[in-house]
Amino acid sequence: MAKDVFKVLKKSKYSKARAGILFTAHGPVETPVFMPVGTQATVKSLTTDMLKEAGVQVLLGNTYHLSLRPGAELLKEFGGLHSFMNWDKPVLTDSGGYQVFSLSNMRKITQEGVSFKSHLDGSKKFFTPEKVIDLQRSFKSDIMMPLDVCSPYPCEREKVLLDMNITHKWERAAGEYWRKNTMNQLLFGIVQGGMYKDLREISAREIVQMDFPGYAIGGLSVGEPVDIMEEYISFTVDFLPEDKPRYLMGVGLPENLEFAIRKGVDMFDCVAPTRLARHGHVFTKEGKKNIRNKEFFDDKKPIDLECRCYTCKYYSRAYLRHLFVAKEILAMVLMSYHNIYYVTSLVKEIRGSILAET
Amino acid sequence: MAKDVFKVLKKSKYSKARAGILFTAHGPVETPVFMPVGTQATVKSLTTDMLKEAGVQVLLGNTYHLSLRPGAELLKEFGGLHSFMNWDKPVLTDSGGYQVFSLSNMRKITQEGVSFKSHLDGSKKFFTPEKVIDLQRSFKSDIMMPLDVCSPYPCEREKVLLDMNITHKWERAAGEYWRKNTMNQLLFGIVQGGMYKDLREISAREIVQMDFPGYAIGGLSVGEPVDIMEEYISFTVDFLPEDKPRYLMGVGLPENLEFAIRKGVDMFDCVAPTRLARHGHVFTKEGKKNIRNKEFFDDKKPIDLECRCYTCKYYSRAYLRHLFVAKEILAMVLMSYHNIYYVTSLVKEIRGSILAET
Repeated sequence: MAKDVFKVLKKSKYSKARAGILFTAHGPVETPVFMPVGTQATVKSLTTDMLKEAGVQVLLGNTYHLSLRPGAELLKEFGGLHSFMNWDKPVLTDSGGYQVFSLSNMRKITQEGVSFKSHLDGSKKFFTPEKVIDLQRSFKSDIMMPLDVCSPYPCEREKVLLDMNITHKWERAAGEYWRKNTMNQLLFGIVQGGMYKDLREISAREIVQMDFPGYAIGGLSVGEPVDIMEEYISFTVDFLPEDKPRYLMGVGLPENLEFAIRKGVDMFDCVAPTRLARHGHVFTKEGKKNIRNKEFFDDKKPIDLECRCYTCKYYSRAYLRHLFVAKEILAMVLMSYHNIYYVTSLVKEIRGSILAET
Repeated sequence: MAKDVFKVLKKSKYSKARAGILFTAHGPVETPVFMPVGTQATVKSLTTDMLKEAGVQVLLGNTYHLSLRPGAELLKEFGGLHSFMNWDKPVLTDSGGYQVFSLSNMRKITQEGVSFKSHLDGSKKFFTPEKVIDLQRSFKSDIMMPLDVCSPYPCEREKVLLDMNITHKWERAAGEYWRKNTMNQLLFGIVQGGMYKDLREISAREIVQMDFPGYAIGGLSVGEPVDIMEEYISFTVDFLPEDKPRYLMGVGLPENLEFAIRKGVDMFDCVAPTRLARHGHVFTKEGKKNIRNKEFFDDKKPIDLECRCYTCKYYSRAYLRHLFVAKEILAMVLMSYHNIYYVTSLVKEIRGSILAET
């Protein structure tokens, strides 16, 4: 089955970019694709109708957050994350590992898994490769991710090596556990190895050998300079098989998307479009703008002159600035919508140009 | 012109309720009608598309807030509040008086007007009856309200009398100023007089003599017990002409609406539906519910079993409770939408039953 879930429709003649289709239990996903992040069973401030209108095909959910609140039991009772949050298209969930390391207290890694305290109430939790698969089974995620250890930046080689080896062990365990009962859910492998090319190569080769239906590049966009990120995207992607989807985790700024697609990446997720919007930053063809700026006080133009989103069709920069300055919730709704629409449309446009060979 | 803007289509046989149509520069309004409050050029958390979907016919804007931010100049540049906030249906704006007395510092009333300091930056402002009309002309409001003094509750007779007399003076001045150039904007008179029946009667007779296209009952819903409010609604409304629209200011809870419509009131505004929603309180046929309650943790039912709004169609109490507990913006969006839809539909239903004579 692992070979049939992805189809490359066209490879660009001008770069390593490709346009494809990923088949999931909740329908096909046209790649390249950007996945907005719905941390707590909601893409912050947007209804699922708005997400569909914005052209979103697949959402990302955070296993760490969802397992703490509302909890896997409730999601299971609801028949999964989809029906709980009123989203009938595909969902990818991460393993929760990343948040364990960035949010929780008192985390302790052993060969078996990671113990930690909930950032919400301090209660003790324990994630193992198998448990994280079970959680994602309760969520009925279309694409699951295995527990891994994402090394920080900068990080000593020795620690990156340790993180990587434990990641490999956990991914192998996750893969074996998953194969016993896949239930139409895909499991992707994750490449780690920090900013060490030899480790990246070892990690990629090891993970690819485990034969997952797709592969993710982890451990990037963790604070490193953009040129280093780009170097490691280019370097790592070449070790991933051409006939499998490639997912670059945590990257989603317009400029980074364009670069990574050219290097052959198919999938992206990032909180930036919505988080930036909530802080007044909006994407435009002329770069990022801060809606708070005084110059927009009486500006009747839309955020982006060419954008066709609801926000740009009906609202001016001056109005959005007013809402933002007045701390109105609608500012966040309208600007989040624009940023999601913008990134989604950008990726769709690039896909179009790959298919049209332009 | 004052006589042609309102038409009573049907009077109930069972109460003083009536169904009518109010004609404005931005189209007709079917009465009775509930007007959501869009304080700062937005009904908090909702897009104007959502408001239309919820069946909203007319919005209320706050002159005090709008004049401070974004300011009348900017709204004038945009051709009015409608195009600024993307709302092409009718708008009613209040006079700003109420907020001057509840929000601003250092207010001082003279016969000419009220001086006060902005609650935003402390800058000195001065409202006169004429200035407040000019502000609302900049906004291009369909229905304007004259500057008045709303007595608090409880309040000594002597102060209520003073407030009332200055209100009458200001309304007369506003009326004269408005008649010089109505520009398709209606001006309603406001009855004050606190909780003193003789003063209420004097105020109503005096204001009605000034011959406005509509009349408002002010000075209620200011902290008095419900039975007193109801008593003064019933008492005051009978002094208002039958052929003019009657607007009860600041009232909008489902139970109060039903009462007031039966007494012959046609128009309402209130922040409660959206403010309550932002605090987790939602309207249902079984009364108000607090979505935060533990009992809703795994409740798969919609907020209200009969409600047909987007929120009730697609989202469960459990999901909304989760969003609210997790402090997600979408909780406010979805619950505000429900409460606005609920009140709007309730009033529409009552109108239907008046027309159907049931």
